[in-house]
Amino acid sequence: MVEVVIVLHEDASEEEIEELVAVLHEVGAEAHISRGEFRTVIGVIGDREKVMQMPFEAYAAVEKVVPIMKPYKLVSREFREEPTVISVGSAVIGGGSFSVIAGPCSVEAEEQVVKAARAAKEAGAMLFRGGAFKPRTSPYSFQGLGEEGLAMLAQAREETGLPIVTEVLDVRDIEVVSRYADVLQVGARNMQNFLMLRDLGLQDKPILLKRGMSSTVEEWLMAAEYILKEGNKNVILCERGIRTFETGTRNTLDISSVPMVKNHSHLPIIVDPSHATGVRELVVPLCKAALAAGADGVMVEMHPNPREALCDGPQSLTLDCFKEMMDELNEMAAFLGRK
Amino acid sequence: MVEVVIVLHEDASEEEIEELVAVLHEVGAEAHISRGEFRTVIGVIGDREKVMQMPFEAYAAVEKVVPIMKPYKLVSREFREEPTVISVGSAVIGGGSFSVIAGPCSVEAEEQVVKAARAAKEAGAMLFRGGAFKPRTSPYSFQGLGEEGLAMLAQAREETGLPIVTEVLDVRDIEVVSRYADVLQVGARNMQNFLMLRDLGLQDKPILLKRGMSSTVEEWLMAAEYILKEGNKNVILCERGIRTFETGTRNTLDISSVPMVKNHSHLPIIVDPSHATGVRELVVPLCKAALAAGADGVMVEMHPNPREALCDGPQSLTLDCFKEMMDELNEMAAFLGRK
Amino acid sequence: MVEVVIVLHEDASEEEIEELVAVLHEVGAEAHISRGEFRTVIGVIGDREKVMQMPFEAYAAVEKVVPIMKPYKLVSREFREEPTVISVGSAVIGGGSFSVIAGPCSVEAEEQVVKAARAAKEAGAMLFRGGAFKPRTSPYSFQGLGEEGLAMLAQAREETGLPIVTEVLDVRDIEVVSRYADVLQVGARNMQNFLMLRDLGLQDKPILLKRGMSSTVEEWLMAAEYILKEGNKNVILCERGIRTFETGTRNTLDISSVPMVKNHSHLPIIVDPSHATGVRELVVPLCKAALAAGADGVMVEMHPNPREALCDGPQSLTLDCFKEMMDELNEMAAFLGRK
Amino acid sequence: MVEVVIVLHEDASEEEIEELVAVLHEVGAEAHISRGEFRTVIGVIGDREKVMQMPFEAYAAVEKVVPIMKPYKLVSREFREEPTVISVGSAVIGGGSFSVIAGPCSVEAEEQVVKAARAAKEAGAMLFRGGAFKPRTSPYSFQGLGEEGLAMLAQAREETGLPIVTEVLDVRDIEVVSRYADVLQVGARNMQNFLMLRDLGLQDKPILLKRGMSSTVEEWLMAAEYILKEGNKNVILCERGIRTFETGTRNTLDISSVPMVKNHSHLPIIVDPSHATGVRELVVPLCKAALAAGADGVMVEMHPNPREALCDGPQSLTLDCFKEMMDELNEMAAFLGRK
Repeated sequence: MVEVVIVLHEDASEEEIEELVAVLHEVGAEAHISRGEFRTVIGVIGDREKVMQMPFEAYAAVEKVVPIMKPYKLVSREFREEPTVISVGSAVIGGGSFSVIAGPCSVEAEEQVVKAARAAKEAGAMLFRGGAFKPRTSPYSFQGLGEEGLAMLAQAREETGLPIVTEVLDVRDIEVVSRYADVLQVGARNMQNFLMLRDLGLQDKPILLKRGMSSTVEEWLMAAEYILKEGNKNVILCERGIRTFETGTRNTLDISSVPMVKNHSHLPIIVDPSHATGVRELVVPLCKAALAAGADGVMVEMHPNPREALCDGPQSLTLDCFKEMMDELNEMAAFLGRK
Repeated sequence: MVEVVIVLHEDASEEEIEELVAVLHEVGAEAHISRGEFRTVIGVIGDREKVMQMPFEAYAAVEKVVPIMKPYKLVSREFREEPTVISVGSAVIGGGSFSVIAGPCSVEAEEQVVKAARAAKEAGAMLFRGGAFKPRTSPYSFQGLGEEGLAMLAQAREETGLPIVTEVLDVRDIEVVSRYADVLQVGARNMQNFLMLRDLGLQDKPILLKRGMSSTVEEWLMAAEYILKEGNKNVILCERGIRTFETGTRNTLDISSVPMVKNHSHLPIIVDPSHATGVRELVVPLCKAALAAGADGVMVEMHPNPREALCDGPQSLTLDCFKEMMDELNEMAAFLGRK
Repeated sequence: MVEVVIVLHEDASEEEIEELVAVLHEVGAEAHISRGEFRTVIGVIGDREKVMQMPFEAYAAVEKVVPIMKPYKLVSREFREEPTVISVGSAVIGGGSFSVIAGPCSVEAEEQVVKAARAAKEAGAMLFRGGAFKPRTSPYSFQGLGEEGLAMLAQAREETGLPIVTEVLDVRDIEVVSRYADVLQVGARNMQNFLMLRDLGLQDKPILLKRGMSSTVEEWLMAAEYILKEGNKNVILCERGIRTFETGTRNTLDISSVPMVKNHSHLPIIVDPSHATGVRELVVPLCKAALAAGADGVMVEMHPNPREALCDGPQSLTLDCFKEMMDELNEMAAFLGRK
Repeated sequence: MVEVVIVLHEDASEEEIEELVAVLHEVGAEAHISRGEFRTVIGVIGDREKVMQMPFEAYAAVEKVVPIMKPYKLVSREFREEPTVISVGSAVIGGGSFSVIAGPCSVEAEEQVVKAARAAKEAGAMLFRGGAFKPRTSPYSFQGLGEEGLAMLAQAREETGLPIVTEVLDVRDIEVVSRYADVLQVGARNMQNFLMLRDLGLQDKPILLKRGMSSTVEEWLMAAEYILKEGNKNVILCERGIRTFETGTRNTLDISSVPMVKNHSHLPIIVDPSHATGVRELVVPLCKAALAAGADGVMVEMHPNPREALCDGPQSLTLDCFKEMMDELNEMAAFLGRK
């Protein structure tokens, strides 16, 4: 399997080429050499892990190294053809269904949480979300209620039966969050917190992995690979917008990532238009777009009273507005043959 | 109407504040001063055009100038509440219909064009597109057939009745393109070619204005404002992806721009997933996403034989694949109450 | 002090305005109202922390909220006028000196580390760097030697007297890294790992805070604010490139951040051109540019044998090349009146 | 010369491979096939222009096409080893000198222009700049004085002897601008106005080619290639910042482009920190950074009275401040052995 193509400088000498070939043979790799009129190109065939660690560019004769193979394996369609379907309590994500995860940005009080969860349940949401540990740009902003908030989420599950999705902000909180939650969320800022990914790979609960705000789809799949490598096969990818120059929305929702992920991976993917845009008016049309593009679900912020929200009020739907959206999404999902 | 808010430096003196106020009065603007404990803020009320030309930041006392009003007028929902509907021959864009514009990236030969146009017509496309003048990154790439290509497009219209959309690459070609085409396209690279926009504002044919690859939605609407200001009210906006760090697609389709434009403007907006992604497999799901997000149509590349395309073969749909997509889009549009 | 300006919708009613004013009064804030012909603007004066937590955008009457004050305090020039100067063993960062931190990307073996440290010392570097815990995109790449690597770094300090800079990759490693290192580095991927920042704020060792690859300068300063807020005042900022569409370099070195940080903050700032570009040939000119732009130092990768580097060989300087650069930088620093 | 490497899908059949090889032979290209265990890779050797036009990706068997050769030729170091040195009247750009181009953003009045030109001359600038045709985002902003402004620039040259640099905004103005100016500037928005580039390639005056705000260095060099291809070899590249998510500066100055261009091309490159940042305070440190990074010069905005500037006042230096900067730059250039 050709792992990489090495393009040599025009003036690479025969000795330099031979040296490279020798180094490749040392690690058990084969070198396929194409000599052009002006330039030589080496196709490297060998063990992926070994080849990927070789510092080809450090050789003076090397101009450019072009990786040919996708750097991920376990998350790829080649490795597993049928889509991964994840069951959490009564909810199912992937495999043709369209699942809505809803709830407030942050857990503020038991009444707020229970009220929101009941509205979510009634409108047809499959999972309930809420943040107990909040990543905030400013140390002066509300940082979440911590374990107290987790208990409120558990209370909401008690009352509605909806499984709980909540973020693990710190690797030391994995245990406590696992005690209360059904799905462990990795936020955009932790997508490349590799040691956290590794530890989550040892958990037996599904992981909802948000895309980093400056991560390519490939890097995102590599982050999922970290989790699968440790044994946890239940990863839900969540597109939540990337950082661009556009200032009309908080981030730019990369809707193309949905069919891209579907082409390359067996993992389910959902879309979070609330964080992607930060603008309430855009949430409903983008949920529909996500469904039409083939996403396995959406994650949406709603709040009994957005005006009193301690976090992200401007992007939260009111309960009425949420209900209305759910009706529309359900009809559209049915039309598209989704469950 | 408060046009801008001027935030002064902490150490701005009374003299400096008075000087600013005097300058504002000179141009007939009013100054509303809010003095805080540490800082003074001036709200400026006055004639938009005059206020927008004032170099406030050049005053030492000024820390920051915050524009409050949208910088566009004629394209805004405030100016005209009902959506603009554009008729071109048999086709209609805007006002609840969903219109597909299809055709090859570039015009290569009469047979190719006519064959593609017939397939477009049969599958239900409303307009036919094809490039006779092609913007190419490399001077060594195929640059289009020029007027000869325009004649082939006219021939395709003759045979199918489909109105023709084609790009004006150079301001000197407006006249010749207008002789053949029904809709004049402004490419992404010309979105801020302001003199071309001005001249197109004097034409009586609709303009399809692609978004610049590093333009905000606001700048895009400003470009449309240039056209409307000269009298041409028939502008169709076309989202075609913006430049980001993601390398899995050629550009990043900014699907949020669809509802954003709908919120701020009365102009119709369509989506071009072929150029946005450069990947054939992504075109169909993204067309559906565009429809679901509320776009007034899509523009799609198709080619009787993508392998022989002189330009952008990898993103072109085959005629069969296009037909299939059209059937799906039509059903979905009907379900969503679109025409 | 006017903290924010609230711009109301054109159709905001008197009741809505009064409601907002009442809410502001409740938290002890003052409202300065500017009524224009078409639109009303409210300047809010009050306690920063309280005002920053208010969800103004959740009110239907509010169109836009414009923050006026910088969101950081302790890191700002307004809070502390004189530049922060940080002493670490024999090294000084800030206050007019120009300090070079050098070393291999990752610690691989004792011989490699000691050899590199000696070369660093001889050439005039002030601190030595090397990674024992490595953040790697792929789970199949070399992840660092861990504590064993830390011991090698300590050995290098023993032999050369150079203080050690190394990365804390996981919050659970703060203690062990502190046992060996003199400066604790926060990598780009952890710049918004807020709980780690908080814990580092309780340490008594200086923190080298790399800029996140999609973080604005303001967000970066906010991350430093997290550390200062807990009591640790010794933060060194490190510009290491941001993510853009340019593919000729790994990241885009944002050289403007150097004078921007100098204008807004008292903290020292250094530049890392090795990670910013990933291209060895660019390191020397960019070190000079950093010095000329006013940076307090640079951090550079060098390796006794870049070809055998387990990580980032292509961007590492050889020891000879590093020596040569140091001579040039020293002369230039002397010319510019830097120490 | 291997132009591209074609990576085939895992399931590519022998027939498909043979078909591709046959197509390559048809255009006189050679195919070097490397068969791996799972995947086949074809190195294509042949005539650049022909190979670059082939739509490989349109073949179902092709997964990925990797260009190996740089797509430009005439602008490359391989084509011409010694740096291009451009003489314009008394000024020289390239070849070891460091040249400052200075002047107001736009030409407003004869007195302003002449005053600025005298100050530029006295302080040691080599060329004078000023815009007569202005690209403005808003149709309501000042658009420049047109030919009247050109005449004022000519007057300034008359009085000071400084050659004039001014922008050609519209392809139809090339002739009139050429009558007055010594160097024709292509703005960022026209960097990919390919027909304008072609026409400028037929002129006998040097072209100052600004980088497009979302253009890679490679695309920029391709734009220069358009000009050289027509015969005009005197192209000065001008880095003026690219668009990123950072909002603290108007654009992000990509200082790495300076050594990158130097590595790949023989053309001179200058830096425009005024437009790159839009912030006066950043101009001086960034001019020094440009010099240190190896740029052949800088282009700077200055104005006799920035407060009255009709355009970009906030980024313009006062005449005193400009003089001071010139003294510092001259000393530093002398120290660095630049002329």
